[in-house]
Amino acid sequence: MRVALAQINPTVGDIQGNTMLALRAIARAGEQGAGLTLLPELCLTGYPPEDLLLKEHFIEDNLMALEQVAAACGHIALVGFVDRVDDRIYNAVAVCGNNRVLQIHHKRELPNYGVFDERRYFTPGEMLGLTELGGSMLAPTICEDIWVPDHAREAAEAGAQVLLNISASPFHAGKGAEREAMLVERARDNNMWLAYCNLVGGQDELVFDGRSVVISPSGEVVARGAAFAEDLVIADFTPGAKLGASADLAPVVDGAEEMYGALVSGLGDYVRKNGFSDVVLGLSGGIDSALTAALAVDALGAANVHGVMMPSRYSSAGSIDDSVALAEALGIEVRELSVEPAFEALLATLWPSFEGREPDVAEENLQARVRGTLLMALSNKFGWLTLATGNKSELSVGYSTLYGDMVGGFAPLKDVFKTRVYELAAWRNEQPGGPVIPQAIIEKAPSAELRPDQRDADSLPPYPVLDAILRHYVEKDDSRDDIVKMGFPAAIVDRVIHLTETAEYKRRQGPMGVKITPKAFGKDRRMPVTNRYGG
Amino acid sequence: MRVALAQINPTVGDIQGNTMLALRAIARAGEQGAGLTLLPELCLTGYPPEDLLLKEHFIEDNLMALEQVAAACGHIALVGFVDRVDDRIYNAVAVCGNNRVLQIHHKRELPNYGVFDERRYFTPGEMLGLTELGGSMLAPTICEDIWVPDHAREAAEAGAQVLLNISASPFHAGKGAEREAMLVERARDNNMWLAYCNLVGGQDELVFDGRSVVISPSGEVVARGAAFAEDLVIADFTPGAKLGASADLAPVVDGAEEMYGALVSGLGDYVRKNGFSDVVLGLSGGIDSALTAALAVDALGAANVHGVMMPSRYSSAGSIDDSVALAEALGIEVRELSVEPAFEALLATLWPSFEGREPDVAEENLQARVRGTLLMALSNKFGWLTLATGNKSELSVGYSTLYGDMVGGFAPLKDVFKTRVYELAAWRNEQPGGPVIPQAIIEKAPSAELRPDQRDADSLPPYPVLDAILRHYVEKDDSRDDIVKMGFPAAIVDRVIHLTETAEYKRRQGPMGVKITPKAFGKDRRMPVTNRYGG
Repeated sequence: MRVALAQINPTVGDIQGNTMLALRAIARAGEQGAGLTLLPELCLTGYPPEDLLLKEHFIEDNLMALEQVAAACGHIALVGFVDRVDDRIYNAVAVCGNNRVLQIHHKRELPNYGVFDERRYFTPGEMLGLTELGGSMLAPTICEDIWVPDHAREAAEAGAQVLLNISASPFHAGKGAEREAMLVERARDNNMWLAYCNLVGGQDELVFDGRSVVISPSGEVVARGAAFAEDLVIADFTPGAKLGASADLAPVVDGAEEMYGALVSGLGDYVRKNGFSDVVLGLSGGIDSALTAALAVDALGAANVHGVMMPSRYSSAGSIDDSVALAEALGIEVRELSVEPAFEALLATLWPSFEGREPDVAEENLQARVRGTLLMALSNKFGWLTLATGNKSELSVGYSTLYGDMVGGFAPLKDVFKTRVYELAAWRNEQPGGPVIPQAIIEKAPSAELRPDQRDADSLPPYPVLDAILRHYVEKDDSRDDIVKMGFPAAIVDRVIHLTETAEYKRRQGPMGVKITPKAFGKDRRMPVTNRYGG
Repeated sequence: MRVALAQINPTVGDIQGNTMLALRAIARAGEQGAGLTLLPELCLTGYPPEDLLLKEHFIEDNLMALEQVAAACGHIALVGFVDRVDDRIYNAVAVCGNNRVLQIHHKRELPNYGVFDERRYFTPGEMLGLTELGGSMLAPTICEDIWVPDHAREAAEAGAQVLLNISASPFHAGKGAEREAMLVERARDNNMWLAYCNLVGGQDELVFDGRSVVISPSGEVVARGAAFAEDLVIADFTPGAKLGASADLAPVVDGAEEMYGALVSGLGDYVRKNGFSDVVLGLSGGIDSALTAALAVDALGAANVHGVMMPSRYSSAGSIDDSVALAEALGIEVRELSVEPAFEALLATLWPSFEGREPDVAEENLQARVRGTLLMALSNKFGWLTLATGNKSELSVGYSTLYGDMVGGFAPLKDVFKTRVYELAAWRNEQPGGPVIPQAIIEKAPSAELRPDQRDADSLPPYPVLDAILRHYVEKDDSRDDIVKMGFPAAIVDRVIHLTETAEYKRRQGPMGVKITPKAFGKDRRMPVTNRYGG
């Protein structure tokens, strides 16, 4: 049996474009002699389609697309689509062949946690699906179905020799290894061949990492697709036999390389799928904007990235020199716009209102907002998408200016803790072609430079401490008392929790970014803004 | 039997404060001789608690609060709380009495549509709850349970004579009448007394309207609580008998009065529950800012509302005079800040970048962003919450500037179509005390005044047409073809749909506002930003 795993990169809502991707993949698999091709979950609609699923005509369009794909299926292909029975809809897989739809099976486990809302739309399937091919029994399943051991066991007991799964499995750091280990266990425990096809590409805050696999009954990974790139993986095996063959075995990707790949993929797809080619971002001389610029160059090419330096009276001399060095290393355009004239004008306009009051965060935010306004003016004039450069540590504690440094269509580092920003910068500097982020940027003390001699360390705990507390509080929902018991100073824990909760309103108005942790700010964490709970 | 319906206004997360509200209500009901008191759904946590429910210690704190409330229950009281059994949690009602928890029942129907995500957290209850009081059988249920006719029928067949329901039923225009009609039908169909207690107050984008009721088996509304205000409704009836008595029968509230009440309640609670006392808003001389100012005065008092006029070179003379007249009529402070100096400074700074290009939306947005920056500066300096004044019509089609007129902590008119803005302004002007919104503001043609002689009508269809199309497209998910078949010009429909879809990224970064329609922009409508579906 020759199996093809077609990990394609559809766009949500682009049913016609996605249909073309599916048809091309099936044709290519056919040319290579595949007798069975797997396409990802909901590949005709894109994933997740969210409230498009509430539109009757959207479901209708997706059903017509399935007919079109099925009509072109000479060999057997599994295609993810939305099925409709009476007034209920299902997350479904169509088994196509002989140029028509042969069978339809429904997803049984509908995730409704984390980023998932599948119970909002779908009715769960009630039965195990089985299909026969060349004398062997196959069990087609969908995503979450394979994470629950019962369904694979049921398939094995029903005599299936091959477990098939089509997925749209969102990435977070380490998820690839975790998922592959689960799949190996599932194949071995049930003594079955397993063919798993995962979606690839970015969709709003989610990235799908591909890495489709074929696994033997003894748990050997026979074939593996690329990470964060479209791929057509071909493998040969005989159901019932122990050994298989494939020329396609992409290397395992993990650590900083995996995170960096996810960020490049998520950023690039957001920009392209929303019809943009170019991005603009402020270069402050700090590590966050430097890493964001490097990611943008790797995602879109240097010619499409526009840097803007916006010094103020509080900027250090190094902030300009270091940004110029960065821009040169990356090969991107850079311009300088001063915030001073507009800052002065705003202060003068506000003087009758502010007279007699000490300068405070109001004046600091003014500078950040002039910068945001300048970036958005370039964005509006030239059609460039603005990138916000803030990281997860500062977004957590609200160490950012709403409508200031938070402006933008996308925030690549939104889910990247500051300690990880340094890791990723170091990893990028080690890549072929040499360092791109100047050492001076890596070594300087983090500062917002909004008042004289300001340093992050003056008002925040050291980032390794801050990030550790945030991991417990935000990502694990540990309580204040439990975190203090772990040995963190109570006063610091209280302050971090207080800052995190009171910054919820800012995060609600910030741009989205790529999810790379188990719990990102976004669909993952739905906290009320009006909230008096202490933590 | 003397029943008390305690429609209280808890705050999400404020378990201690909510416990005090519950204890006070139960004590007052006891003083008035009640033998049975109903408190709203999840009144100890506030509703909806969202991802606070993922924190183990939050569940624990709510269980301790229930013990505290139960210990104070001399008579029978129904209290909404989160129950925990092993590692599952339930949306639950505790029947308290004899100073302890007597019974616990679980909500069976968990809404997971619209604004609701209850399947994300809760396990559904499996059984009908029944409780005996003074020789009569009562059936305590929770919110959605009473919307599904089966459960009331099951209770009647099991011999229950009184149906009890504790709710947190979010408001939209007309919901009060719709809900009361359903409750009358439920009582009549099953020949039972019905006592229904609903939550009151604002929580983020939701408003709960109270209007708790006691209904006789013949469908007579014997008692009704206030709309949008805390209330303790007392009624006497004998299970099995046909007649009851109550001195508490608040009038029916509907139409503009109902919507206005919802907006005042939602705005006032957002401001107060988030610890603010004052708000600041821009007064443009247009109807949106005028109505927003009137709502703010009615919610917070004139002394706590601060108006700012920010004319530019394109502002009409009337924009200042009319705003001054409005401020005088409302009794609010108003100041004038010019956008010109900062606008000029920004243009000069951007000149090297913009040279040789025609003025376009970039320059228009600059003015709006200077205004946003000035409002936020006052907000930061004086601790006033900024109100955004945009309406649902312009937010739908993106006729608003992100980080400009969209800045703010709350947007009272976010879910109010422009045609309704006029209705509400007219209604407010008819109230005792005389008109507050000058006739000139009501009569002028809507304009953003961002370029010479700009009028909304130049680039948008007339508002009655726009709003009708948006109702079909946004609120009913009707297709482009269906809307055209209704008689709307195809070119206009296409343009409105295109504008609506491409403005999704802006809406994602805007402040929240009060939901008053069946489908508001917010939790109600979860559309992908990256989305190529045509409509």
